[in-house]
Amino acid sequence: MTMAAVGRLGSLASPSPLGRLVSRLTRMVACISTLPSTGSLLSAAYTPSLLVSLPSLEANDRTMRERIAPSGVKLRPHAKAFKSSALARWLLARAGDETVGLCVQTVHEAEAMLSRGGVANLLLTNELYGPNARRLAELAAAHPTATVGVLVDSVRGVQALSDASVKAGAALAAYVEVDAGQNRCGVRRESEEVARVAREVRDAPALELGGLQVYHGGIQHVRSSASRRAAVEAGPARAARRAVELLHAEGLAPPVLTGGGTGTFMLDLSAGVLTEVQPGSYLFMDGDYGQNEDRLFEQSLFVHTTVISVDEATGKRVVDAGAKAMDLLCGAPTVARHHLGLGSTSTLDNLSEEIIANITYKNGGDEHGILGNVPPGALPAGSTLQLVPSHCDACVNLHSHLLGVRNGVVETIFPLDARGFY
Amino acid sequence: MTMAAVGRLGSLASPSPLGRLVSRLTRMVACISTLPSTGSLLSAAYTPSLLVSLPSLEANDRTMRERIAPSGVKLRPHAKAFKSSALARWLLARAGDETVGLCVQTVHEAEAMLSRGGVANLLLTNELYGPNARRLAELAAAHPTATVGVLVDSVRGVQALSDASVKAGAALAAYVEVDAGQNRCGVRRESEEVARVAREVRDAPALELGGLQVYHGGIQHVRSSASRRAAVEAGPARAARRAVELLHAEGLAPPVLTGGGTGTFMLDLSAGVLTEVQPGSYLFMDGDYGQNEDRLFEQSLFVHTTVISVDEATGKRVVDAGAKAMDLLCGAPTVARHHLGLGSTSTLDNLSEEIIANITYKNGGDEHGILGNVPPGALPAGSTLQLVPSHCDACVNLHSHLLGVRNGVVETIFPLDARGFY
Repeated sequence: MTMAAVGRLGSLASPSPLGRLVSRLTRMVACISTLPSTGSLLSAAYTPSLLVSLPSLEANDRTMRERIAPSGVKLRPHAKAFKSSALARWLLARAGDETVGLCVQTVHEAEAMLSRGGVANLLLTNELYGPNARRLAELAAAHPTATVGVLVDSVRGVQALSDASVKAGAALAAYVEVDAGQNRCGVRRESEEVARVAREVRDAPALELGGLQVYHGGIQHVRSSASRRAAVEAGPARAARRAVELLHAEGLAPPVLTGGGTGTFMLDLSAGVLTEVQPGSYLFMDGDYGQNEDRLFEQSLFVHTTVISVDEATGKRVVDAGAKAMDLLCGAPTVARHHLGLGSTSTLDNLSEEIIANITYKNGGDEHGILGNVPPGALPAGSTLQLVPSHCDACVNLHSHLLGVRNGVVETIFPLDARGFY
Repeated sequence: MTMAAVGRLGSLASPSPLGRLVSRLTRMVACISTLPSTGSLLSAAYTPSLLVSLPSLEANDRTMRERIAPSGVKLRPHAKAFKSSALARWLLARAGDETVGLCVQTVHEAEAMLSRGGVANLLLTNELYGPNARRLAELAAAHPTATVGVLVDSVRGVQALSDASVKAGAALAAYVEVDAGQNRCGVRRESEEVARVAREVRDAPALELGGLQVYHGGIQHVRSSASRRAAVEAGPARAARRAVELLHAEGLAPPVLTGGGTGTFMLDLSAGVLTEVQPGSYLFMDGDYGQNEDRLFEQSLFVHTTVISVDEATGKRVVDAGAKAMDLLCGAPTVARHHLGLGSTSTLDNLSEEIIANITYKNGGDEHGILGNVPPGALPAGSTLQLVPSHCDACVNLHSHLLGVRNGVVETIFPLDARGFY
């Protein structure tokens, strides 16, 4: 906001065109801030900051593509996890035939991926109405060579989407969402409503039937492989098979069956129902996914933090990563052990894994974390360490930039331009 | 990050000056996104988005200044709550002699407030080391007419700050933090350490002794007024009095005693110890502060959200405000009743307060909230409503922009340029 805008607060006078331009430019300038130079040492970075180990990121990307490729199922990585058009470009530049495009979860993410991410095939995995539906339709109209899909779960939703699409002169692919057991959005599973909504899509002037989405976020984190396999079978696999039967009975065939995530994609492949999977967290991993059995990926995401207060008598260290740098809703972070991608940045390098695993973190407020059980002399004031977040994409959402680190050097910076709102 | 930077990921070649410029420009452009025009109706705004009712914001600002002015104690509003240089300008343009400057909590906030907020007197209420301390010192050197303060709680901290200050050619005011009972940062209360650290500040080449900070975040939310008054007396008031005695015994007098927040500032005035108070949440309020007795301020902060899925049979509504739009660590949001500043935007306007109060919110994931107990026919798919966040400044930190609304019109937009990191 400009000072002119501040002055306007007392009245409702319309802003002039010049005022709007000044306001827009001011907002641009307001986004500029000091960033480390690429090529600088991690030890020179400010804290708290968000890091990705590039060797681990590369390994995770490679592992996923190698696992998916032989199955014939398509990979559509979910950009809600990384929220960066630059990382989308990085991903797509390495992708092969196994990758069909990207998922996003918000219109703001869609805008970043279509305008700057170079994505030609995008699926927004949520229902939209009103201004949000209009904005997606306008984005699709502005990117006529891109395929843009979005979910619907009611006749009213189809109508809202169709109206927005007609008005914008856009073509949208509508996917009928089937509730696979999460009890969130989606038509009720095993209900004939799926066919009614699909018919409505078929008959709408500016929509095509993209397919079905059957996703269950809750079962991604079922710990044991056997229980997770059973949950896939009883949830999304069963719901998808029944929905396809109901559509076939109406003479409708969904071209795409999409769903799955980092926790279940291998089991989704085995179940043989989905034609594409939507994992996102595999690129970063986190404390929650790290507790699943049979994990295939490395921890690559870390929050870099500084010890700002010490109490040797009680083994307490206060770090500058609290709830504003570190999503805590899914639990406390853990202290990262020495990691090749990050280089040596902490006095923890000399401690045993057992001692490090014993260090606790508790929330000390928005900008403070309190470590307990720190051995005497370890982590003096001013030393840095890395924390493993409990939930990767909520943590990514708290930051403006992701520092890509290799061997202790900030090699690249991914602006998290799809985070936040507007 | 540019495509050139993406291409560089495989190697450690240093970026060229041109490459750095392109990278910087790309990061600027990446910040541009679609915003509503000022003067447009709230009903045209995308969701989820963060709203402030301007009439309530203005009332809260006025109430605080009126309460503080007669006491002679200074007001130093805490910008960690609002994270916007534009809102800082708004605040300072209205302030009188009662307002001495602003507080911030991070170096990123300090940069926004010094470079764009027009703040001449800034106190960073945290301890800094390493690159963070260097950055604050460089900011102070770049703004030689501004007074810049920061906290210390150890001899090591004083040395780190003094080194950074000397190197940058800056003058910093160091405030000794006394732990008032929160068991976080600060020298132990009633310990002679306060005098030792203060002497170290006095003797450091590039520092001056700004004063003492005694703040206890935990007691801001003690519900009953009597218990909160007792907590102030037993905590910060007692700790501050003893610390002043210990300094006096050393021939040191702290010029400023700073602390307090929205929950305790009236009690801090009564206790008669502090020379300035640091409230921030009073501008917005939230569900947590709303439960305190004797609150003086109006709820002005809301998250604007759309109903995207409906189940009339169970009274369920899914809204597009989940954990990425709505900090949930301090509890669930509540549904806002009709609010004059926002105008009429929802079918809730026709429901009784009792029915609205009975609607529940539970977390449905990062981008979904699930409302329960919604009466039949209310809140159809596509309708909008507002939620009251449980914790205001963690919620503000999730958003890029704050829409200032009056009578249902987006009158101004405050970019939240001090949120995120870097």
